[in-house]
Amino acid sequence: MHDSLVLYTNPMSRGRIARWILEEVGAPYRTELIDYGPAMKSPDYLAINPMGKVPAIRHGTTIVTECAAICAYLADAFPEADLAPPLTARGAYYRWLFFAAGPLEAATTDRDLGMEPNTEQQARVGYGSIEAVLETLEQAVSVSEYIAGAHFSAADVYLGSHIGWGLQFGSLESCPAFVDYWARVSDREAFRRANELDDRAMSSVAKHHPA
Amino acid sequence: MHDSLVLYTNPMSRGRIARWILEEVGAPYRTELIDYGPAMKSPDYLAINPMGKVPAIRHGTTIVTECAAICAYLADAFPEADLAPPLTARGAYYRWLFFAAGPLEAATTDRDLGMEPNTEQQARVGYGSIEAVLETLEQAVSVSEYIAGAHFSAADVYLGSHIGWGLQFGSLESCPAFVDYWARVSDREAFRRANELDDRAMSSVAKHHPA
Ligand SMILES: N[C@@H](CCC(=O)N[C@@H](CS)C(=O)NCC(=O)O)C(=O)O
Ligand SMILES: N[C@@H](CCC(=O)N[C@@H](CS)C(=O)NCC(=O)O)C(=O)O
Repeated sequence: MHDSLVLYTNPMSRGRIARWILEEVGAPYRTELIDYGPAMKSPDYLAINPMGKVPAIRHGTTIVTECAAICAYLADAFPEADLAPPLTARGAYYRWLFFAAGPLEAATTDRDLGMEPNTEQQARVGYGSIEAVLETLEQAVSVSEYIAGAHFSAADVYLGSHIGWGLQFGSLESCPAFVDYWARVSDREAFRRANELDDRAMSSVAKHHPA
Repeated sequence: MHDSLVLYTNPMSRGRIARWILEEVGAPYRTELIDYGPAMKSPDYLAINPMGKVPAIRHGTTIVTECAAICAYLADAFPEADLAPPLTARGAYYRWLFFAAGPLEAATTDRDLGMEPNTEQQARVGYGSIEAVLETLEQAVSVSEYIAGAHFSAADVYLGSHIGWGLQFGSLESCPAFVDYWARVSDREAFRRANELDDRAMSSVAKHHPA
């Protein structure tokens, strides 16, 4: 059933981002829940993603890993969902997709690991400092309704998830610009549907797992 | 002159990647050399890139920062250069662009900073471990001529630059797969032209700078 589009995920993971974009796209897909631990490092799953991480999607014979790539890929593969700007107007779209996948993710990871680059290191570290990243982001989410302009796009799914997640788990400082942006981008049927599906899936993975 | 397309760069920086993709595109552009230090943190330049980093491009009124975004943007904005796959076939293209901008960049940065996540941290750190990243990458560059298939693309400019740079400066371990891939993707007129332009530009920035 629906074998042409498959989501490999775990409901307690960044896989929620992939689920959200799939729900935005609206095409039928099948879900394979992958448990953390041995299942995610099994030869079968490593053939999908040699990183041994979720999420991944398979669309026909095409495998895509990396949440941001999954968002960008599905937006282009299903143009009727209108999730990407026209090819001649993708400046902000790509800028903030890559900003989120690069500097934002790296800076918040390093802070979580207790690593803060000193001034000399900041010049070569791609994100500079967490402060620079957060100030840049605060500005970026404040100039227009959505991150790529007046129109909701796959970049909002990805960047929004980072911000929503960060606000929820305290890994990003709460500021009005983040709270407002997150309220704007998350007020969507597809987001609610995706959450319900993943909340429900929690019970199936939970039973394989020690609490 | 050529004010519709402007490159903000420093020849001793990731700006070399942006120069390369501009030379692949072949449209006329103007270069603004930005010195490290106060010039890069001046209000004028922060209006272009609030991160105070190079490179950035301006195309008309559109500003794009983040090397990977600059590659993806220019490939789409100048379709006649044939640097991006058709919209329905962008799986590998986006996968490896985002893999390079995300996990590869973050893992090599952390290793350079002396930070190696332990096993427990690897599950939530997006790149897992530097070993997983390098094995995944070694496999990825070995399955086809170019990273997105049989055809050279903007993803090769970006990923190739990471690999070429890593081999040259020793931040990536040399292995035949990397060496061969780099030889394939760097054998291009546009790459040679870009390097000559940046090598020549070195003398203009050098004089503002202590050695
Ligand atoms: N760069 C990846 C990160 C994926 C990732 O780190 N996934 C975590 C869950 S959020 C995972 O699968 N961890 C399990 C493991 O590493 O064993 C992406 O953006 O998709
Ligand atoms: N994530 C950015 C990184 C840019 C970056 O870190 N550029 C460095 C030079 S390679 C820079 O401008 N450093 C000067 C500074 O931070 O003051 C990208 O990929 O474009």
